[in-house]
Amino acid sequence: MSLTAEQLAEIDAQRAGANPTRRATVPALEEILFQAAPVLDHGFVRVIDYMGDDAAVVQAARVSYGRGTRRTSEDAGLIRYLMRHRHSTPFEMCEIKFHVKLPIFVARQWIRHRTANVNEYSARYSILDREFYVPAPEHLAAQAVVNRQGRGDVLQGDEAAEVLQILRSDATRTYDNYAAMLNEGVDGQPVDPSRQGLARELARMNLTLNTYTQWYWKTDLYNLLGFLSLRADSHAQHEIRVYAEAMLAMTRAWVPITCAAFEDYRMGAVTLSAGMLAVVKRMLAGEAVAQPGSGLSRREWTEMMAALDRPA
Amino acid sequence: MSLTAEQLAEIDAQRAGANPTRRATVPALEEILFQAAPVLDHGFVRVIDYMGDDAAVVQAARVSYGRGTRRTSEDAGLIRYLMRHRHSTPFEMCEIKFHVKLPIFVARQWIRHRTANVNEYSARYSILDREFYVPAPEHLAAQAVVNRQGRGDVLQGDEAAEVLQILRSDATRTYDNYAAMLNEGVDGQPVDPSRQGLARELARMNLTLNTYTQWYWKTDLYNLLGFLSLRADSHAQHEIRVYAEAMLAMTRAWVPITCAAFEDYRMGAVTLSAGMLAVVKRMLAGEAVAQPGSGLSRREWTEMMAALDRPA
Amino acid sequence: MSLTAEQLAEIDAQRAGANPTRRATVPALEEILFQAAPVLDHGFVRVIDYMGDDAAVVQAARVSYGRGTRRTSEDAGLIRYLMRHRHSTPFEMCEIKFHVKLPIFVARQWIRHRTANVNEYSARYSILDREFYVPAPEHLAAQAVVNRQGRGDVLQGDEAAEVLQILRSDATRTYDNYAAMLNEGVDGQPVDPSRQGLARELARMNLTLNTYTQWYWKTDLYNLLGFLSLRADSHAQHEIRVYAEAMLAMTRAWVPITCAAFEDYRMGAVTLSAGMLAVVKRMLAGEAVAQPGSGLSRREWTEMMAALDRPA
Amino acid sequence: MSLTAEQLAEIDAQRAGANPTRRATVPALEEILFQAAPVLDHGFVRVIDYMGDDAAVVQAARVSYGRGTRRTSEDAGLIRYLMRHRHSTPFEMCEIKFHVKLPIFVARQWIRHRTANVNEYSARYSILDREFYVPAPEHLAAQAVVNRQGRGDVLQGDEAAEVLQILRSDATRTYDNYAAMLNEGVDGQPVDPSRQGLARELARMNLTLNTYTQWYWKTDLYNLLGFLSLRADSHAQHEIRVYAEAMLAMTRAWVPITCAAFEDYRMGAVTLSAGMLAVVKRMLAGEAVAQPGSGLSRREWTEMMAALDRPA
Repeated sequence: MSLTAEQLAEIDAQRAGANPTRRATVPALEEILFQAAPVLDHGFVRVIDYMGDDAAVVQAARVSYGRGTRRTSEDAGLIRYLMRHRHSTPFEMCEIKFHVKLPIFVARQWIRHRTANVNEYSARYSILDREFYVPAPEHLAAQAVVNRQGRGDVLQGDEAAEVLQILRSDATRTYDNYAAMLNEGVDGQPVDPSRQGLARELARMNLTLNTYTQWYWKTDLYNLLGFLSLRADSHAQHEIRVYAEAMLAMTRAWVPITCAAFEDYRMGAVTLSAGMLAVVKRMLAGEAVAQPGSGLSRREWTEMMAALDRPA
Repeated sequence: MSLTAEQLAEIDAQRAGANPTRRATVPALEEILFQAAPVLDHGFVRVIDYMGDDAAVVQAARVSYGRGTRRTSEDAGLIRYLMRHRHSTPFEMCEIKFHVKLPIFVARQWIRHRTANVNEYSARYSILDREFYVPAPEHLAAQAVVNRQGRGDVLQGDEAAEVLQILRSDATRTYDNYAAMLNEGVDGQPVDPSRQGLARELARMNLTLNTYTQWYWKTDLYNLLGFLSLRADSHAQHEIRVYAEAMLAMTRAWVPITCAAFEDYRMGAVTLSAGMLAVVKRMLAGEAVAQPGSGLSRREWTEMMAALDRPA
Repeated sequence: MSLTAEQLAEIDAQRAGANPTRRATVPALEEILFQAAPVLDHGFVRVIDYMGDDAAVVQAARVSYGRGTRRTSEDAGLIRYLMRHRHSTPFEMCEIKFHVKLPIFVARQWIRHRTANVNEYSARYSILDREFYVPAPEHLAAQAVVNRQGRGDVLQGDEAAEVLQILRSDATRTYDNYAAMLNEGVDGQPVDPSRQGLARELARMNLTLNTYTQWYWKTDLYNLLGFLSLRADSHAQHEIRVYAEAMLAMTRAWVPITCAAFEDYRMGAVTLSAGMLAVVKRMLAGEAVAQPGSGLSRREWTEMMAALDRPA
Repeated sequence: MSLTAEQLAEIDAQRAGANPTRRATVPALEEILFQAAPVLDHGFVRVIDYMGDDAAVVQAARVSYGRGTRRTSEDAGLIRYLMRHRHSTPFEMCEIKFHVKLPIFVARQWIRHRTANVNEYSARYSILDREFYVPAPEHLAAQAVVNRQGRGDVLQGDEAAEVLQILRSDATRTYDNYAAMLNEGVDGQPVDPSRQGLARELARMNLTLNTYTQWYWKTDLYNLLGFLSLRADSHAQHEIRVYAEAMLAMTRAWVPITCAAFEDYRMGAVTLSAGMLAVVKRMLAGEAVAQPGSGLSRREWTEMMAALDRPA
């Protein structure tokens, strides 16, 4: 993470303030509010604002006049019921806003989640910083052989060294050329007075996809959980998963009951198709079922047996 | 407005609390937080929660590390610029949640604004209160003759009296029959032990559309302004406009700079089509233009001259 | 279903036409295009237009230049894979538009699915027909005793007769009064020339919630399946489920491969939470697990055992 | 545009087919269906599928049983009325799907329009082609001096030549290194058998933002017009505007009446704020108004006078 002294001072100034509010507050989230949690080599994610708490879910489900909460165990039971039966609207009643610094290729995956509000730093209007992502050696994965979308073993030796060297030098050179084409000094004056300088909206096209960008990203709790269920999952690309994992920890601080229900009923859950369910029933009845007579394709069989921790 | 003593006590209890927060707070909105503003004969609207303030719009537009604000005049200038050029995303960074009690036929218009989160009181699960809307005599409008969608003069005399009597007696009778079909006493026990009682999800179909329902409605500032621009407008039906007007006043308390820009650039604005613009240019050049040679249809001509306060 | 002779003639006229197109067509859906499938006592649902077919899902997943399809078995395998792993975007590439006539209380449940386009017949602008839903005697359910949201046994004898009588007479009376307040003859002239007639936007509030309305409803295949998974489910209220079931049959005609995958992986599927999965693993390993030592609440245990067809 | 012979053959094969349909068809759009309109140096946009036509807008506004159309002039009048008064839902009843090949930095602007369905070619799963955008010399604009977001004059002489040389050589080198890190031959076998090859999801980060990607993009007519109003506008960046202009031409072929109303009431329209309107009224009344006494800021004054073609 590369926050300048000036940025850290701005964050500290915001953290120093405290005003009284009649709204629901979450002390555990207030504690980390505005703080940047480092992610990857230069990125971060931090909570900028939030609305609501676990009780707001309960309150909305009951459309109550006051807080709407009863005994803690009753509230937790209701939240777990809503999660188990995939209710959505009560969880939409909480909102959170993040400030994220992330490589552009990660931003392109992230933006596919459309039910969110986004303000991205504009490279039409401003100049991007000289920061780009280079994977740590232990994350320099080879292409998986069996799965076209996945990662295989970690690259070793010369190949790893060469890849790291390429990523660094290409990003450096394209950034230097970006700056040269802009021809703009820190004072806003031309570096070379004989040149006009290329328009920012054009110069940016020379940057590589590991250049860092940043945005404000705001969403409701229901859509946040949808994002986390896909991006904190083991099948997600490592470079977005680390952001999702940091956000999952923040979500635990914010709405602990909802988050526990989410981890039980969604993150840790397994869905059995009609065909898989029929097989499980036969197995529970004591029958020895094998793939050929199961009615499942080989692929489905393998997926199911993996989920049940049984030999395929 | 018909809040029970118990509901008022719940509201007071919530208003009594105050916790410190690092988030942006808006004292003028805190002042009225949770308070129910009466609307129509039994309805209300009240702010339940909010996120962000005018500065959050500026902060998002600048993707800043701290508050992002500069001098007040500079911030106001930026907000006015964003509003004038119909930027949307910075205004999406503020969020507000209302609790609304409203007649079902108003709820059906309201719900057409889809970019919002809603939790409605469930008549499958609960029993609706015996409350229905009856217009005040001065709002008992006749059907407009020239405009099929509008209202004409106020009904007078016997016709007015009969209409009010019908609305009251039909709503009363259908509600009484709803209660009778449910056969459920306040203690949850059957009123008539020899009857099973009709399912709530069926019995509700006997209620009239002026029966009150209630919901939590949450949206971002951009979509709230879209709602207000349509529903606080003079062409909106009176019964939804009074809600919008109450919410517009709350919006002024919440984000005064944004709301002033909105009232100037959207509520009070007029859009001239390419054809209308050509006519205005000719007029400004001193030409006397009449409808026949204007290139505008008679209807467009009338609409334009009305907007310009000129004789059609 | 109460289509007038004129409406049936309009539908027949549209069915008679046929134009050549380069777009994908689905003969099985063309066969029933525009035809109204009767639902409830006066309602219907019919397909008005569609875009895409099973191959369009494949084509989008492959971002292909042509049809993108290969061998049928390969395409079906891809569609089943996408469904199993809850991919959404390829299914969003197909679109369908329905014309639905339905009671207002059903419309109010339906509209909660927000990711759809809707044009409803306007009772501000037009006069609603004299049609309202009255349940068939076998659907006149009592309130469930154990489940506050569900239906119990069917009402019998006098109670049933009285309920039906109430529903019919209240809807009839409120409609008659609606018409009287409007004071408008079929020729558009006042019935009673001495009265002005109440504005339509006000008069409608006197109607009961079982009055029929109608709308055009358009959505993409992904969101259609989301709607069907909730509304064609056994927990849905009967009065909306019958619409969903009719639409499910139309979906089978439209995209048979996608629909089969949907019925296998979503309609017929069961989701096991982390805790439930742990119990199933223990059972499969031969252990006799009972609720007390299962780590599941009594309610979760009951739900799981029911899903697995085992004694609770 | 760089379509391979194989891709052109796929397109021709699709264009060759024709099936009868009962749906509305638009011969002028069928004529160009599937054809790629070239945009920029290697990009294109083409219509892949569509649903509805001008009559479908009318049909939805009337919630009709048949086509819903009357005399052409009456239909056009209704469409113009709906456009002038910013109705949205009837225009949402038409849908269109495009296949677009575009530089990544353009795709990043485009995706900010969230109410659309998108399937992008996956660089996690597949290898991107060696194609990148280099501006034509006449579009190599300098940074505007007065407007931080805009373009100034075209670069000349050595500066222009150097910029073009940089863009070409950096994109070439980073692509070559991308390919080298992948280490994958056209046969899918390693080029250098001693190396594992970097995972595709990582290697892509070395590409520059002018690399071409492609996607399927589907939206309804209302949101398409919203996209065109922003992106076919003179303030839009040239590189996205050329796509919007090509799509605007296709929209004219598809829904000529709607598109004409759109160009009159939105593309060619001007919105006057409450303050601007007051000034125009004074001017029309013969008063000579200057900025100082106008109540408008200097910036608003300049914008208004420009819109009215009058000297500032």
